[in-house]
Amino acid sequence: MRQAGRYLPEYNEVRGKASFLEVCKTPELAAEVTFQPLRRFPLDAAIIFSDILVPVEAMGVGLDFAPGPKLERKITTAHDVEGLKVPDPVSDMGFVGDAIRAFKAEKPDFPLLGFAGAPFTLASYMVEGTTSKNFVETKAWMFQNPKRARALLSKIRDVIADHLVAQVEAGAAAVQIFDSWAGILGRDDYLTFGLPYIVPIIERVKKTGAPVILFAKGAHSSFPELAQSGADALAVDWTTPMDVAHRMTKGQVALQGNLDPVALFGPAERVEREVQRIFTEAKDVEGHVFNLGHGILPKTPVENVDVLVDAVRRMGKKSAP
Amino acid sequence: MRQAGRYLPEYNEVRGKASFLEVCKTPELAAEVTFQPLRRFPLDAAIIFSDILVPVEAMGVGLDFAPGPKLERKITTAHDVEGLKVPDPVSDMGFVGDAIRAFKAEKPDFPLLGFAGAPFTLASYMVEGTTSKNFVETKAWMFQNPKRARALLSKIRDVIADHLVAQVEAGAAAVQIFDSWAGILGRDDYLTFGLPYIVPIIERVKKTGAPVILFAKGAHSSFPELAQSGADALAVDWTTPMDVAHRMTKGQVALQGNLDPVALFGPAERVEREVQRIFTEAKDVEGHVFNLGHGILPKTPVENVDVLVDAVRRMGKKSAP
Repeated sequence: MRQAGRYLPEYNEVRGKASFLEVCKTPELAAEVTFQPLRRFPLDAAIIFSDILVPVEAMGVGLDFAPGPKLERKITTAHDVEGLKVPDPVSDMGFVGDAIRAFKAEKPDFPLLGFAGAPFTLASYMVEGTTSKNFVETKAWMFQNPKRARALLSKIRDVIADHLVAQVEAGAAAVQIFDSWAGILGRDDYLTFGLPYIVPIIERVKKTGAPVILFAKGAHSSFPELAQSGADALAVDWTTPMDVAHRMTKGQVALQGNLDPVALFGPAERVEREVQRIFTEAKDVEGHVFNLGHGILPKTPVENVDVLVDAVRRMGKKSAP
Repeated sequence: MRQAGRYLPEYNEVRGKASFLEVCKTPELAAEVTFQPLRRFPLDAAIIFSDILVPVEAMGVGLDFAPGPKLERKITTAHDVEGLKVPDPVSDMGFVGDAIRAFKAEKPDFPLLGFAGAPFTLASYMVEGTTSKNFVETKAWMFQNPKRARALLSKIRDVIADHLVAQVEAGAAAVQIFDSWAGILGRDDYLTFGLPYIVPIIERVKKTGAPVILFAKGAHSSFPELAQSGADALAVDWTTPMDVAHRMTKGQVALQGNLDPVALFGPAERVEREVQRIFTEAKDVEGHVFNLGHGILPKTPVENVDVLVDAVRRMGKKSAP
């Protein structure tokens, strides 16, 4: 999950001089804000600073953050879908690869993750034109226009596969696919409009040799199918306990998770207790990667991240086999 | 789930003359909008028109809908919590009982449900002051102030128990408890801040002899505990398939659900297909009550509700033992 961000004063300093999208598109700045948490905390990996909507803009849909994402137009007609560009990951989104290279130039041996949004989540933004609580418009559109939805999802699938492969080629050690809105679909619909467009992306990336982590937030009923997606690891949000995720995935994949980001608001003793609980719930998981159950929140007190990292290092050692 | 509402032109006509809260507080109007769907569709039961925030206002927190709920102040300090009134369900919220009586006077034999919000959901509105996507403020407040949170939740628990008993005494055949925001908490937190404040409410209502339906939206990991809450039935949202809910509850309770409300946007053939899928997934459930997986949406095409009711009547008969 994103480690850089608004909870760090040094990030806000960078953002005082450059907009969110400018940071994404300026490799030195993107690499710099990726470094920032590593200077404070002894972390095991970093994730490159970027945004899941970068490929949407590269497909020809103008984008603004104010601060939530706002697309210049909605993609709804067959003509809209056909008109979307299939960008070249190097000439059209090269700044992401450049940011990865800038990071690796400074820290060649440090594991850096690349990432991208999943087709369903990106299509949701395209149809709705912005973020939404329940993406009713998107779902109604997909249910009513399944053929057009398949065309849109397929196009995004190809763009995202290219985008992730390019990140691996630039130096990402592994990639994570974020299906942030998976949880608004029922199981049947997720297995129709969600997962089938992710599996070929995973196949493409795996050919490079890089491991793939899949985060289908809220898709709790689809864990058995997610475990067979080809992904090496599944990220688990905080609403599915690690023991439940383990039972549903039958040890077929590694599991990453799953502290509720709000737990970082404290108190510190509670952060410790939650870390202990998660290690206990994950005790039978082979290949448990401790992580937040979603992105770190803007007002998170920095000192509690220290408490967290310290607790994970301490207890993780104890619980490791 | 709410059947009355903005998808019906006759409801919007009533709302042209009275605000949302005025409709809630005028028994003839509340009864009238409860009747409206029954004039169109051959339904088996109705739910009284009201709002889960009615008791919040009666506890002394002024309320407005514009159109989302907006509370005049937030409840956060110990003083705020202590200052909350424990209203008398008859003298302070008598309009709800009066609406139930007005309905029953016209249709004495028709099963009418009463309802209320669960303590955690109502506390979330009180702490946040409005609706929110993730209720970060509420959760951080509860984690940081567990003692104060318990005081608030206990106070709401008592108010809600009184409110539901009063609805049964006014003529409600059963009641439903809505924990609309249950899904923002992990299992452990839901079993700390959510369910323990619902169980005593269920106990109180059950003494009247009326059945209780519990809807803990999104609390998918707590189904085993929800099944032991004392509730007669659990409502299931559309993200947990009926077969999964059945396995997790081991036949201990009836199950209600779970069509995705967005499915009602059509097309009609898809509505039929979804109804069939749900009956198939629920085939082993003893006591399956077909229902939506959440409230009906404002822009729902009325003709698809006809398709739904017809399909449920047709296929439900076939699948009944």
